[in-house]
Amino acid sequence: MSVLAPFHDEAQQQLGAGDIPAYMKTLGKAARSAASALRRAETGTKNRALNAMANRLEGARQQILDANADDLARGQENGLDSALLDRLALNDARIDAMIEGLRQVAALPDPVGEIDGMSYRPTGIQVGKMRVPLGVVGIIYESRPNVTLEAASLCLKSGNACILRGGSEARASNAAISECIARGLEDAGLPVSAVQVVATTDRAAVGALISMPEYVDVIIPRGGKSLIERISREAKVPVIKHLDGVCHVYIDTTADPAKALAIAVNAKTHRYGTCNTMETLLVDAPIADLLLPELARAYGEHGVELRGCERTRTLLPQALAASEEDWYAEYLAPVLAIKVVDGMDEAIAHIEQYGSHHTDAIVTQDYSLARRFMAEVDSSSVMVNASTRFADGFEYGLGAEIGISTDKLHARGPVGLEGLTTQKYVVFGDGQVRQ
Amino acid sequence: MSVLAPFHDEAQQQLGAGDIPAYMKTLGKAARSAASALRRAETGTKNRALNAMANRLEGARQQILDANADDLARGQENGLDSALLDRLALNDARIDAMIEGLRQVAALPDPVGEIDGMSYRPTGIQVGKMRVPLGVVGIIYESRPNVTLEAASLCLKSGNACILRGGSEARASNAAISECIARGLEDAGLPVSAVQVVATTDRAAVGALISMPEYVDVIIPRGGKSLIERISREAKVPVIKHLDGVCHVYIDTTADPAKALAIAVNAKTHRYGTCNTMETLLVDAPIADLLLPELARAYGEHGVELRGCERTRTLLPQALAASEEDWYAEYLAPVLAIKVVDGMDEAIAHIEQYGSHHTDAIVTQDYSLARRFMAEVDSSSVMVNASTRFADGFEYGLGAEIGISTDKLHARGPVGLEGLTTQKYVVFGDGQVRQ
Repeated sequence: MSVLAPFHDEAQQQLGAGDIPAYMKTLGKAARSAASALRRAETGTKNRALNAMANRLEGARQQILDANADDLARGQENGLDSALLDRLALNDARIDAMIEGLRQVAALPDPVGEIDGMSYRPTGIQVGKMRVPLGVVGIIYESRPNVTLEAASLCLKSGNACILRGGSEARASNAAISECIARGLEDAGLPVSAVQVVATTDRAAVGALISMPEYVDVIIPRGGKSLIERISREAKVPVIKHLDGVCHVYIDTTADPAKALAIAVNAKTHRYGTCNTMETLLVDAPIADLLLPELARAYGEHGVELRGCERTRTLLPQALAASEEDWYAEYLAPVLAIKVVDGMDEAIAHIEQYGSHHTDAIVTQDYSLARRFMAEVDSSSVMVNASTRFADGFEYGLGAEIGISTDKLHARGPVGLEGLTTQKYVVFGDGQVRQ
Repeated sequence: MSVLAPFHDEAQQQLGAGDIPAYMKTLGKAARSAASALRRAETGTKNRALNAMANRLEGARQQILDANADDLARGQENGLDSALLDRLALNDARIDAMIEGLRQVAALPDPVGEIDGMSYRPTGIQVGKMRVPLGVVGIIYESRPNVTLEAASLCLKSGNACILRGGSEARASNAAISECIARGLEDAGLPVSAVQVVATTDRAAVGALISMPEYVDVIIPRGGKSLIERISREAKVPVIKHLDGVCHVYIDTTADPAKALAIAVNAKTHRYGTCNTMETLLVDAPIADLLLPELARAYGEHGVELRGCERTRTLLPQALAASEEDWYAEYLAPVLAIKVVDGMDEAIAHIEQYGSHHTDAIVTQDYSLARRFMAEVDSSSVMVNASTRFADGFEYGLGAEIGISTDKLHARGPVGLEGLTTQKYVVFGDGQVRQ
């Protein structure tokens, strides 16, 4: 598959010889060099490359579908389950969405070069902070081949080179997509090594990618919790990671019952498998009698299984008894834990003890409680009177999302183009020296 | 030394039994709990604690000097060199500076709670980002006892609990200072465990501190390069680190010679041992004849040893020949490497190959070159016509500095209060659900 690294005979030889560490080092060097070019690339050039990729994708539609059919056939032979096969599958609608995604990223404002807070200091120098690319981003992901394009486009727009390591199930699809990416970069006069797709499914490639701080500035793993935990544990490079989303909605006594009902139902049932789905509902005792039976009816219609604390089960005998583990659980399924609490302090204490600091919401009409909940809940998204399902880069207006960070440092919550950049200090003087 | 953890008999017992991991875990738990209280603490309360610490320090001046005298005597017995003894020594002037520092931190604006970019989304929700504390900060440092107070005050003001691990040489001084910190916290009604000084010099304490992600959110090592490298390598917690400063000044042909001379002399000779001191001077060929002899005279007056490339040595026969290692060297001494280059592109390529991405400056009158240098040099501070010595939290107007980061993620360059915080998303709705 020469297309994956047409620019590098050396890499091909190392790959042929099975020398994965040397191969990854060659990709790393090429990425570092491309990062210098991308740091200098004008916004217009980056946008031209994104639009050229979209055109190349349109032109290679059939090749991509053929490659994807090969992946699907191999997946079926290898006994992949239907959920995985669905994530792997491309069709015309999904290719349309990929093309549309590229054009949307091209249309987003370029974060690189923005200068914040420029001001004069008493010495006469002017100091501010300029937003700049991180450098080289390594992305490790699983079966969905459209991630190849999403990751490449966001890294390119933010001025970063990237090394992409997709799942082995999608290797033919990823090769066909990376051909379009390479041709689009060429069309705009940018180095092809700005986006490199690792051309081996050997797991040693992941080990090498996360151990080259000299060539890679940050790793973003996208996939299941076990993949992310393993990478975080072993990486010698900073990782922007996304672990679990044990999200809560707390309904206070002053809540508007109609809003509380709408939010609690939406937060659980809009989609079950997403990280911003509510997993535990906390209800203030005085409003529990009124709300819980009605909520239980609504959840019943959606086939949601309820597991409650003792006080919940007095009101809802149909609920199973929640165990200690239920309060920690990220079900990602039509199951909900419910606890009746005595006031917001108990709710916040519960969230602090059992939550994952992802997204937590209060439903209340009380101004002071809303203000305190906002300040005191230490989660990446804290909401008043809105469904936790809004915790999403597109809903927040980031225009795109490379992932959701459950880390505190650097980027927290949905990560868009800005999360793929950093800030350096810029100083303008006119001969000033330090006294 | 019961004062170090008066709030925790358990910690004392564990310490007495020599069970360092259990002891550190107890400190970690106490810090995590204090972090919740600090996250909620009002600005006025934090400021009262800082001013109360200043008063306590004033009242305990003699005890601190006595404790410091013990440390110095032990240091002399143990054969510490004079530079280390100087860093360890406290006197009235240094205690005055510590007291003044506390009052200055109290006077700084509180970064916690600032909300940026709040705006309506098409769905009707309002989304913004609120600045919040990181949580628990671990700081590992060497001999200077005033770091205990600086670190404590900056963590407190930014709403973080901290665990401080100072050098064994300073243990009596640190104990006396931490007594003042604890009393100041008490005076303001804040938990004493908001600032904990590790009461053992066992190195296992460091190993435990950097391996408790459940209790510690970030580690900031302050000290020599080998300490920082070891901690970065072994930490299981994110590290904000400061490695080397191989800083450059590039003098372009269009530079104003008087400004070039002033900046090149100041950047090298203002202080030799600091990370923002110039280590390599790059001079554009057409201006080298004019500038280098005059610069060499000035450096001669300061006793700076010059090591040059071949072209430099043609103009300055007194310069030694620079080896390949010289271009990588952070001398931290009156030694300077000089290279004559052909234009800015060669200068930037040199900086990219040999520099440490700390601070680099250009001296030029050419608008387009200045603009390109700013965009293309990938360092934490990039300057036009100013001395590299300005790369400093106070000079930049941060009001205080916990360190200078050579990392790219989270905080880059001088780190003040803002670098000790993160941002969470806040969402205000009125019953909105996701469609």
